Amino acid sequence: MTPGSLMRAEIGEQPTVLAAAAQDPAEAREVGHLLRRRAPRFVLLAARGTSDHAALYAKYLLEIRLGVPAGLASPSTLTVYGARPDLRDVLLVAVSQSGGSPDLVETALRARSCGARVLAVTNAPASELASVDLHVDVKAGAERAVAATKTYGAELLALWLVVEAWRGGDLQRAQGMAQEAADHLGRSDEVATLAGHLGRYLDGDRLVCTARGYSYPTAREAALKLMETAYLSAHAFSAADLMHGPIAMISRDLPVLAIAPAGAGATALAPVLASLRERGAELAVFGAKSYRAPGELGYTLREVDDDLSPITDIVPLQLLALETALARGLDPDRPRGLAKVTRTW
Amino acid sequence: MTPGSLMRAEIGEQPTVLAAAAQDPAEAREVGHLLRRRAPRFVLLAARGTSDHAALYAKYLLEIRLGVPAGLASPSTLTVYGARPDLRDVLLVAVSQSGGSPDLVETALRARSCGARVLAVTNAPASELASVDLHVDVKAGAERAVAATKTYGAELLALWLVVEAWRGGDLQRAQGMAQEAADHLGRSDEVATLAGHLGRYLDGDRLVCTARGYSYPTAREAALKLMETAYLSAHAFSAADLMHGPIAMISRDLPVLAIAPAGAGATALAPVLASLRERGAELAVFGAKSYRAPGELGYTLREVDDDLSPITDIVPLQLLALETALARGLDPDRPRGLAKVTRTW
Repeated sequence: MTPGSLMRAEIGEQPTVLAAAAQDPAEAREVGHLLRRRAPRFVLLAARGTSDHAALYAKYLLEIRLGVPAGLASPSTLTVYGARPDLRDVLLVAVSQSGGSPDLVETALRARSCGARVLAVTNAPASELASVDLHVDVKAGAERAVAATKTYGAELLALWLVVEAWRGGDLQRAQGMAQEAADHLGRSDEVATLAGHLGRYLDGDRLVCTARGYSYPTAREAALKLMETAYLSAHAFSAADLMHGPIAMISRDLPVLAIAPAGAGATALAPVLASLRERGAELAVFGAKSYRAPGELGYTLREVDDDLSPITDIVPLQLLALETALARGLDPDRPRGLAKVTRTW
Repeated sequence: MTPGSLMRAEIGEQPTVLAAAAQDPAEAREVGHLLRRRAPRFVLLAARGTSDHAALYAKYLLEIRLGVPAGLASPSTLTVYGARPDLRDVLLVAVSQSGGSPDLVETALRARSCGARVLAVTNAPASELASVDLHVDVKAGAERAVAATKTYGAELLALWLVVEAWRGGDLQRAQGMAQEAADHLGRSDEVATLAGHLGRYLDGDRLVCTARGYSYPTAREAALKLMETAYLSAHAFSAADLMHGPIAMISRDLPVLAIAPAGAGATALAPVLASLRERGAELAVFGAKSYRAPGELGYTLREVDDDLSPITDIVPLQLLALETALARGLDPDRPRGLAKVTRTW
């Protein structure tokens, strides 16, 4: 089989997956309405890997769109240390493609026994996680590539639909995302060219991704794809955290991917971009054209509502990871030492 | 001035700083008792850089020792997006050496206006952050080195004292930590030798730090010190997250620092260490001797209560960053482009 053909095919399924979810949001709407009627005071989010970035996106949605404080759970406090926190009035949202990672299942069960409601967002309605309490199926279809791509976008959209229904918003706004994904796919040659240019700076196998706000999960997910498939030491930082220390390691020609679609997050990112340029970093801006300096590498993201754009901003970055892996002679469908379902305890 | 002399001197002050705090915990005790009388339902932690790792440590303490659910705040939701979450019954803990970062001050003020109580843990009792609501002074004395060291241990101890007083525990248990720090300082030659051995694997400027549970903040703080002072691309992962993707980038001879003091966290880490060895990573275990394979690099940590050990486990890792920077011809007191107080918005 052609290297990367599985991953490429699944990246390519995203318009179909997003269209189906946006057109039939009944399950997410029902869960959202249910939460609206008996709203938790606090949300904890539990996930691993790619799904952890979907959980981080949900945290921003919950706090910004709904005004509900949220935090990422540390599963080990429940599973390794046996903590028994008081979780009445708490909603635990567990996000998992497979619904099968033992530490997530145990986290969900324990959270429930400590008084929490549990919402599982999975691509596996028959999984143990899906049966704990509430469930939303992201309906991305079987994912065969080890590097998760279509399930990420699907998880983001499912979480957006739940939050939007919960706040009594307009679910129709998600209708355009399938076309947005299709537009990105139509520009895959542009991404391949960009990967070629960027490749000249990858001798050290190091790369930094940065963003702020809604796009920070995108930066983290892009870094993870580059680690998994291209074996780069790809390091994601929120732009604010980057300035508190790690910026010292940024030197001339180090490639930095900045995710800056139009919105408040990118406005806050702009001074950090200036700082990176001063250091001579090889900056590639995925975002509004106005954030790119003349002659700089980049990829223009059209303006989309900033709460929705992470759902599709990831598409060109998934393609970038794929093309970078291929250019390095690797098969992104066979990353060394990774299985599709990781079992951690 | 000799390169690194400021940082070395402040690392060396930790026994004095820890002894003073452990012997006079009145302020932390008072705050702890106050929280005990009117306990919040939930804790949000806000911090940047080194202090963010102290906040992460506090999250484990709160959940494991107190059973209070806690999450790390994303300051940008309040400061960049203007979110107005319902924070009644919430305690916001802001941790900051300087008490002066504008986004933290604004986060604290906004959290307060949304109904939260605010506890600031700083080394600056006259700072704006200290005056918002409750305050604990970590009393580490002026910190002049750009890379924070003594304030980190002092923040950890202050947070431990607050949580322990809150749960009605025994504050005396912290008494031994000053001696523990002194013991590590007495072994600084051992760390210098270790840095020399490790240096042979640092050609690629890459390094990974990993741990689980209470030691995960230690892994993150060690990575940050190595980024700030030695300009390494030092990447910290919780051992569970490492297995969900990033493990693919670990190749032969890549240096991996594992933090594994005795306790449940290290027990959960053990299978990950085996996996790293299989990949031929150059493993250095900072922890109980039993976790080190024959002939492997490492540094033995004596057994200390696992909730307390992060307060001093960081000391040899601070020394390792210092020695690694010096061996690379860098001055850790003058990291490029960093100021002592980082102002982010």
